[in-house]
Amino acid sequence: MISKSQISFVKSLHQKKIRKEYGLFIVEGIKSVTDFIHSDYTIDAIFCTANLIPKLVNLSQKVKLNEITDAELKKISTLSTPQQILAIIKFPVETSINSEILNNTFTIVLDGIQDPGNLGTIIRTADWFGFKQIICSEDTVEAYNPKTVQATMGSLSRIKVSYTNLSAFLEYVKIPVYGALLSGQSIYNTDFKNEGLIVLGNEGNGISEAVLKYIKQPITIPRFGAAESLNVAISAAIFCSEIKRNILN
Amino acid sequence: MISKSQISFVKSLHQKKIRKEYGLFIVEGIKSVTDFIHSDYTIDAIFCTANLIPKLVNLSQKVKLNEITDAELKKISTLSTPQQILAIIKFPVETSINSEILNNTFTIVLDGIQDPGNLGTIIRTADWFGFKQIICSEDTVEAYNPKTVQATMGSLSRIKVSYTNLSAFLEYVKIPVYGALLSGQSIYNTDFKNEGLIVLGNEGNGISEAVLKYIKQPITIPRFGAAESLNVAISAAIFCSEIKRNILN
Repeated sequence: MISKSQISFVKSLHQKKIRKEYGLFIVEGIKSVTDFIHSDYTIDAIFCTANLIPKLVNLSQKVKLNEITDAELKKISTLSTPQQILAIIKFPVETSINSEILNNTFTIVLDGIQDPGNLGTIIRTADWFGFKQIICSEDTVEAYNPKTVQATMGSLSRIKVSYTNLSAFLEYVKIPVYGALLSGQSIYNTDFKNEGLIVLGNEGNGISEAVLKYIKQPITIPRFGAAESLNVAISAAIFCSEIKRNILN
Repeated sequence: MISKSQISFVKSLHQKKIRKEYGLFIVEGIKSVTDFIHSDYTIDAIFCTANLIPKLVNLSQKVKLNEITDAELKKISTLSTPQQILAIIKFPVETSINSEILNNTFTIVLDGIQDPGNLGTIIRTADWFGFKQIICSEDTVEAYNPKTVQATMGSLSRIKVSYTNLSAFLEYVKIPVYGALLSGQSIYNTDFKNEGLIVLGNEGNGISEAVLKYIKQPITIPRFGAAESLNVAISAAIFCSEIKRNILN
């Protein structure tokens, strides 16, 4: 059951300012919703279609499932093809940077990423490679944007995403600061040691001037062909992979 | 100048069946349009806004630029924020697989990729790493889909994309066939030698049964965290990067 006022409230969560005002966001699809139920996040409400309920016996012991029709789901979904289940989830209470998990590991730092799909793919990739935290500039796209959430495929439930003034943050950190740049040391010849930050810049403009001065080690992914640049999520993935292969070898 | 009938014709090219019928597709944005002008593709028409024309003196010697208003561009564009220039380009004459550029190199083979953005990002990444050709199953999304073209950032002008029955093709090839799978030899311990095919599968279902039997060397990207899978464009990029680092070292 979903009331008319609930329908219009869930629809309002498609907008960033309403998400921020209420501290709530939308997660869709059985894989992602299940990941959030098993995480530290607090579930506010779950809506799902009748045909899915028998398959969710285990989940229904943990959370209340509100049955809705396909037509109702279509109204509240952010997807052109809704995926039978939609959850409203509370923003995490603690969103500040966890300094303890900066040491003895690598953390991705994003400077002005604009595309929600790119941010989501970076979160998913970071989760695959066992990274725990992503630090974003204040002008990076919101992690609770429905397109970001969708692209993380549930990984947002496991990766901490913090927003901060990057200049102030980088001024204070003591671990090595690597930057993904079009010129610099080849990533294939870089010994990443055991800890550091990897800064990746905006899709069109790269790393901002304010942040560039904190990059102590410019690193480049060698180019063999003619493309002018790589997509930022692709660059992030190649950094994650190289760091892990470096630790293994 | 653009007539009403031209506007409706360009709009009709937003649809796959019309693109196929006329053998024409849309490219937008100055970077991408310029790359196509400097390629072997044939330009059918170019429309651009008045403010851009003075900046395109060099191009206007090679091709005719039809001036249109922002309102007209908005009508024919496939983008929510049109980028001042839109070109209509002819499909390439030769789209069959070039067997000569299969030897002594690596070629990406895509089995049932559905997301146009993923295909576009793979084409852009292949171009960065100096690959020349991508071979797709017949059910892979169309390379001339506007979202694919946009995501290639001009790289579609340089990378040959062929569609074929993969089983028939793989039956005949003599070079090693590697597959991106969730279990297999670690990509970090694989010596890729100097030639081969890298098969990547559909976003949800992976490599199809029919194609799986031709995979002689299953390769996996080691997982260190909890994500269930990687985005296919991310996997493709890590393969491209590892192959090139392997050749360098």
